Amino acid sequence: METKTLLYENIAADIAQQISQKTLRMGDKLPSLREICERYRVSQTTALQAYYQLEAKSLVESRPRSGYFVCGQASRTLPLPTVSAPGPAGGNAAHELISRVYGDMGRGGAVPLSMGVPALELLPVAKLNKGLVQASRTLPGSGLEYEQVQGNENLRRQLARFYGTSGQALTSNDIVVASGCMEALSLSLMAVTRRGDTLAVESPVYFGILQLAQSLGLNVVELPTHPQTGVEIDALKKVLTSGKIHACLLVSNFNNPLGSCMPDTHKQEVVRLIQHYGIPLIEDDIYGEVYFGSRRPRSCRSFDDSGLVMWCSSVSKTLAPGYRIGWVAPGRFKAQVLRLKLYHTITGATITQQVIAQFLETGRYAHHLRGMRQVLHANSLRYAGAIGDYFPEGTRVSRPGGGFMLWVELDPGVDTAVLYDLAMRQQISIAPGSMFSLQNQFTNCLRLSYGMPWNTTIGDSLKRLGRLIAAL
Amino acid sequence: METKTLLYENIAADIAQQISQKTLRMGDKLPSLREICERYRVSQTTALQAYYQLEAKSLVESRPRSGYFVCGQASRTLPLPTVSAPGPAGGNAAHELISRVYGDMGRGGAVPLSMGVPALELLPVAKLNKGLVQASRTLPGSGLEYEQVQGNENLRRQLARFYGTSGQALTSNDIVVASGCMEALSLSLMAVTRRGDTLAVESPVYFGILQLAQSLGLNVVELPTHPQTGVEIDALKKVLTSGKIHACLLVSNFNNPLGSCMPDTHKQEVVRLIQHYGIPLIEDDIYGEVYFGSRRPRSCRSFDDSGLVMWCSSVSKTLAPGYRIGWVAPGRFKAQVLRLKLYHTITGATITQQVIAQFLETGRYAHHLRGMRQVLHANSLRYAGAIGDYFPEGTRVSRPGGGFMLWVELDPGVDTAVLYDLAMRQQISIAPGSMFSLQNQFTNCLRLSYGMPWNTTIGDSLKRLGRLIAAL
Repeated sequence: METKTLLYENIAADIAQQISQKTLRMGDKLPSLREICERYRVSQTTALQAYYQLEAKSLVESRPRSGYFVCGQASRTLPLPTVSAPGPAGGNAAHELISRVYGDMGRGGAVPLSMGVPALELLPVAKLNKGLVQASRTLPGSGLEYEQVQGNENLRRQLARFYGTSGQALTSNDIVVASGCMEALSLSLMAVTRRGDTLAVESPVYFGILQLAQSLGLNVVELPTHPQTGVEIDALKKVLTSGKIHACLLVSNFNNPLGSCMPDTHKQEVVRLIQHYGIPLIEDDIYGEVYFGSRRPRSCRSFDDSGLVMWCSSVSKTLAPGYRIGWVAPGRFKAQVLRLKLYHTITGATITQQVIAQFLETGRYAHHLRGMRQVLHANSLRYAGAIGDYFPEGTRVSRPGGGFMLWVELDPGVDTAVLYDLAMRQQISIAPGSMFSLQNQFTNCLRLSYGMPWNTTIGDSLKRLGRLIAAL
Repeated sequence: METKTLLYENIAADIAQQISQKTLRMGDKLPSLREICERYRVSQTTALQAYYQLEAKSLVESRPRSGYFVCGQASRTLPLPTVSAPGPAGGNAAHELISRVYGDMGRGGAVPLSMGVPALELLPVAKLNKGLVQASRTLPGSGLEYEQVQGNENLRRQLARFYGTSGQALTSNDIVVASGCMEALSLSLMAVTRRGDTLAVESPVYFGILQLAQSLGLNVVELPTHPQTGVEIDALKKVLTSGKIHACLLVSNFNNPLGSCMPDTHKQEVVRLIQHYGIPLIEDDIYGEVYFGSRRPRSCRSFDDSGLVMWCSSVSKTLAPGYRIGWVAPGRFKAQVLRLKLYHTITGATITQQVIAQFLETGRYAHHLRGMRQVLHANSLRYAGAIGDYFPEGTRVSRPGGGFMLWVELDPGVDTAVLYDLAMRQQISIAPGSMFSLQNQFTNCLRLSYGMPWNTTIGDSLKRLGRLIAAL
């Protein structure tokens, strides 16, 4: 296995060098797979792996029935977005704008760059359908009976097996299955806060978190957040020291919309701080599996031994949004979470839990994720490259190491709520930045999803978006 | 069709007369289906219908491979339970007892007379499994994509078609799909109440409602309730007049555990009262389809034109508990309910919604319900008969016109929490009465489910239960 890895990496490195030295130029056809096999005396699989790696780095592209070609490279690398500087607590969620953006979505066939889920083409539809039939045969009562309140036992065991390897100790008994990550967050928040309490979050932050917190009557303190390393530790320390915070909710890995991923040292420091102040941390790790580096980033929970971290995730962003399978490892708050789940929804659908359990058990999930990461990594470079090519001077863009969102910061004079309307007239749907704060921040920012496989329509949409921005 | 109906009814009436005149006696074998066909010159279907009707009335019973026999009739008819007389608001849910009863359930193969769902044998497992495969083929994205927040459009349309006929006007747009009736109740309560508000409910009342209300920080006023006609109107009027009630939650039809069903005049009066005081009524109509009379009882909502009634129901008690399909028609509170659903769970599983939509669309649900009602009606008479035969003097029992629960009131000296432990040692699980109140009422009552098809084990369990009670 190791020799093979080196082989295909050597091949990829050779070709990458030829591209950087301009021996191979944009549009040049690359050697066929057969030629690579002969030249390097390797198997077709190895040759293919080399090209996959080059593709993931956006250096080459495959054209159906024609082979591999050298890609156009981005003409320039844009600077990162600035670190956010939110004010003190207060403000209101941009309900109207959010409803407009998601009410419009899919309508009239607009290119959904605003969407929060990966495209269906990236999901293993046929395999999950087979799993559905199998689950209806395996389950006693074919899934018509109530599942345990805590969730399908096999699912919890498989989750513990799968996630217990990323540096954290996890048993099936630690996990409570929920109806997507959103119910996991909702149960966690209800378990540890009361109306009038104050919650600390990143800024920008997923608008659903803001809406949920406000509907529970919580005050929200938005914290300055770095586009690569996440929440600013000093700022977090300061609010915790103030004694006015009752809980934190952080998206530790590949935060939506910013794409930031807290380094291990930051995670350790966050855990040390919440332990010191005895404040629960709800960790939203929904994007953790969509990493582009060599290994999965760790969770804050993996550094915690106090039970104060409530670790939430789901398969909604990677496998089956409509199955509504998420979970929380609620630490010392498990009894409260279980009670709330029982009282509010009893339990989730039985059969979809079983399908996901089987998908994990057979190793299909790990396999699926490997392919999905490759595509999304290539997409991220591709989309960012197009933004570099087409967006005007002064544009800043995130460089996420995972997830499927780009955060774009434009000239302060550009109002992305206005841009939204102009873009929709051209059938392009974007997510304006002000949706991601209660404080009317980020009015010159937007979130773009690269969850759709690249094609000319997308390239063209980004080009037109760039023109619209320039005109503003 | 009409001639046929009369035919089988005539046959059934003939035999019923022979039984009442003692021409046919307990244990006698009835004519075979072929004999009936020849004697009355009817089809086998008609003969079978006649026997089904007699079976539903508990006059005859079929024995596998032996034919039909005259049943034993209950030796006496027991009086109804007394009308409850709860005190003012206060008290706590019997959490510990509830956890014990439901934690024990199914363990060690106890006969689950405490269970809150019909037995799997009563559910159309194979048909729903076929529906699952069909749904995965029909749905765009095979159900992997998010469903609308309001719920599957076809499901809402089919629900409107199905329920729009029971005297109420209902469109697909009036309905919000929820994860079972429990989420429907939870969303409704969250939409119209705040922590510290007061909720009026029946007494006894399903413990899940008490737990939900308490977890939302609501005070609960339990109202005197008649075992046949439901909440006492005068008592409701009195608390509404006091001005201290912020919402009502009533189980209008075949209340769990009491089996009461409000007459139309009471429903009209309840609606008039809540309209007069401007108080929302959350109507839990989860058992409405399980009626034993000639037609479905109406909902309170069908008498309302103000939008104050939030009508909740589900298919969890009749079709597929594990599918988690419920709904609410939230009237004037629809926007709030939709927002809360979006914030807390986004939406439910996509595919199970589609399966139920198809099941309704093809008329399979109506067909299934007809058969299920027959069985449950027969069960209710059978179980009540056995209680009459085996339980000691002083026992009172409800005579529900639907649902699948019997409410049994014993001598005031009997503590059913003690009985629970004794019965569990004999592998019989019952639901003690004090679970159904916050006020430590009903300590001499118990709820028995007749959701399981009758067999000798059940007969024997009821006999042993009777002996245990007598010994106490």
